[in-house]
Amino acid sequence: MGRNLCHFCFLSFFVTLTVAESKWNILNQRTRNGMKISLKNYCESWRMNVELHNIREFQVVPEECIGYVGKYVTSTQYKVDSERAIEESIVYLSTSCTLKNDGRDVWIFDIDDTLLSTVPYYKGHHFGGEKLNLTALEEWMSHGKAPALEHSLKLFNEIKARGLHIILVSSRREHLRSATINNLLHVGFYGWTSLILRGPEDEVKGVQDFKADVRKKLTVGGYRVWGILGDQYSSIDGLPRAKRTFKLPNPLYYVS
Amino acid sequence: MGRNLCHFCFLSFFVTLTVAESKWNILNQRTRNGMKISLKNYCESWRMNVELHNIREFQVVPEECIGYVGKYVTSTQYKVDSERAIEESIVYLSTSCTLKNDGRDVWIFDIDDTLLSTVPYYKGHHFGGEKLNLTALEEWMSHGKAPALEHSLKLFNEIKARGLHIILVSSRREHLRSATINNLLHVGFYGWTSLILRGPEDEVKGVQDFKADVRKKLTVGGYRVWGILGDQYSSIDGLPRAKRTFKLPNPLYYVS
Repeated sequence: MGRNLCHFCFLSFFVTLTVAESKWNILNQRTRNGMKISLKNYCESWRMNVELHNIREFQVVPEECIGYVGKYVTSTQYKVDSERAIEESIVYLSTSCTLKNDGRDVWIFDIDDTLLSTVPYYKGHHFGGEKLNLTALEEWMSHGKAPALEHSLKLFNEIKARGLHIILVSSRREHLRSATINNLLHVGFYGWTSLILRGPEDEVKGVQDFKADVRKKLTVGGYRVWGILGDQYSSIDGLPRAKRTFKLPNPLYYVS
Repeated sequence: MGRNLCHFCFLSFFVTLTVAESKWNILNQRTRNGMKISLKNYCESWRMNVELHNIREFQVVPEECIGYVGKYVTSTQYKVDSERAIEESIVYLSTSCTLKNDGRDVWIFDIDDTLLSTVPYYKGHHFGGEKLNLTALEEWMSHGKAPALEHSLKLFNEIKARGLHIILVSSRREHLRSATINNLLHVGFYGWTSLILRGPEDEVKGVQDFKADVRKKLTVGGYRVWGILGDQYSSIDGLPRAKRTFKLPNPLYYVS
C-alpha cells in the first residue's frame, strides 16, 4: 500500500511537471515589459529574489519552477554555493573573532538544511511544489535518516575545535528530540552544548521571535553570539542580532 | 588622446581576462573538498554569496570572474532579477501598506544601480575588477549621462501616484548635486521630495550609519518609512529599520 502510494506520488509529480511545462510553453513567447524570457530566466529570478529576501512567505515553489528547483538542490552548484558560505564563515572565525575563551563564546546553528539535509524528503514531495504536510515531514524526521550537509560539518568541527559553545536552535518540535539527537550523532554532529527545540509555549509565537528570544536569553546571560549559520532569514533576523550571520541557500520552503 | 586611452583600456581588459582564464584553466581540474567545479560554478557561487551577504567588504570582483560579472550585468537575467524585485515591491505596496495619506508616508530609494545604472562606467573599468577610482567615477557621474533602470522607474511612478513622499538617499557627495538632479530629471525621475547626499560631516561616518541616521530623523519627525529599494545592504541594514526592504542585485562593488 505504501509502495503503491509512492508510485502514485511519483507519477503525479511528472504529470504536474508536464502540465507546468506545457503551460509555460504557451506563455514562453510573451514578453514581460517587452522582454522575452525563458523558463530558466524566470525560475532563476524567482530563486534569486527568495535569497535576496524580496520574496517572502511563499507557501509553495511555483509550479513551473519545480523542475528547476529540484535540479538546483541536487546540483553541484548548490553544493558550491553552500561551501562558499561555509568558507566565508571560517574566514570570519579566523580573522574577526577575538574569543575570550571564558566559556561564554557561542555559535548558533539551525538544523534542517543547515546541518541536516531535508532534500531526500522534498524529492518525494515535488521539491517544495506542494503545501507543507507537517505530519509527513515529522514522520520522515522521526526516522532520523537525514544526511549531513558535509561542508557544514566542517564548520561545526572547526568551531568546536576553537572552544566555542555550539547551540542548536531549531523550529522542530520537542517530540522529535530523541530522533533529532540520534540523527545528529549518527552523521557526525556531536559535542554541541545545547539543543533548543520548540515547546508547546513556543509554538504560539513565530519562529523568528522564538529564535530571537533564545539569543536574548544568551545575551542577558553574558554570552557572546559570534555567529549564526542558518538557511532561513527567520534564523538570523530580529533583535538582538548576532555579531555576524551567514545564510545558506534554500529555495525549497520559507519559515517565518 | 581620450580615444587612445579608451582603446588601451579595452585591450588591457582582454589581456586581464586572458590571464585570468588561463590561470583558471590550470586550477580547473582541482577539486574543492573532492568536487570538480567549473569557472561558472565558482563565479556563480561568488555572486550568490555576495547577494546572501555572506561575502562582505570586497574591494574588487575576483579577477577570474570579471568576464562572468560583465556578462551578468549586461544580460537579460540581470534585468529579470531586478524586475522581479520591483514586482515584489509593487505587490507589497498594493497589499500591505495601509497609507494614512497625512503627508508622512515615505519611501526611500538609493540612486546608483537602483535608479541610475553605473554599468556603462564599469564597462570601461573591468566590471568591478579594478579598485575604485573615485576621481574617475565622480568625473563620469558629473556628466549626468547615467541611464535609468527602467523597472525602477515603474516603481518610482507607482509610489508617486500613491502619494508617498519619495526620499532619495545616496552616498554620492554634495558637489555632485546638480549633475545628479539633471541626470535624474533627464531620464524621468521627477517629483521626489528630497535628495539627501553626503556632506563633509557625513563622510567621516560609514554609509550605513549615514543612511540609518536619515531614517532616524524621519522616524523622529513622525514619518513612516514604508520601504527602501537599494542595491547595497548598507542602504537597508542598521536601526531604525524600514517596515520592508527590497534589494536589487549588484555584483559590481560593495559599499559598507
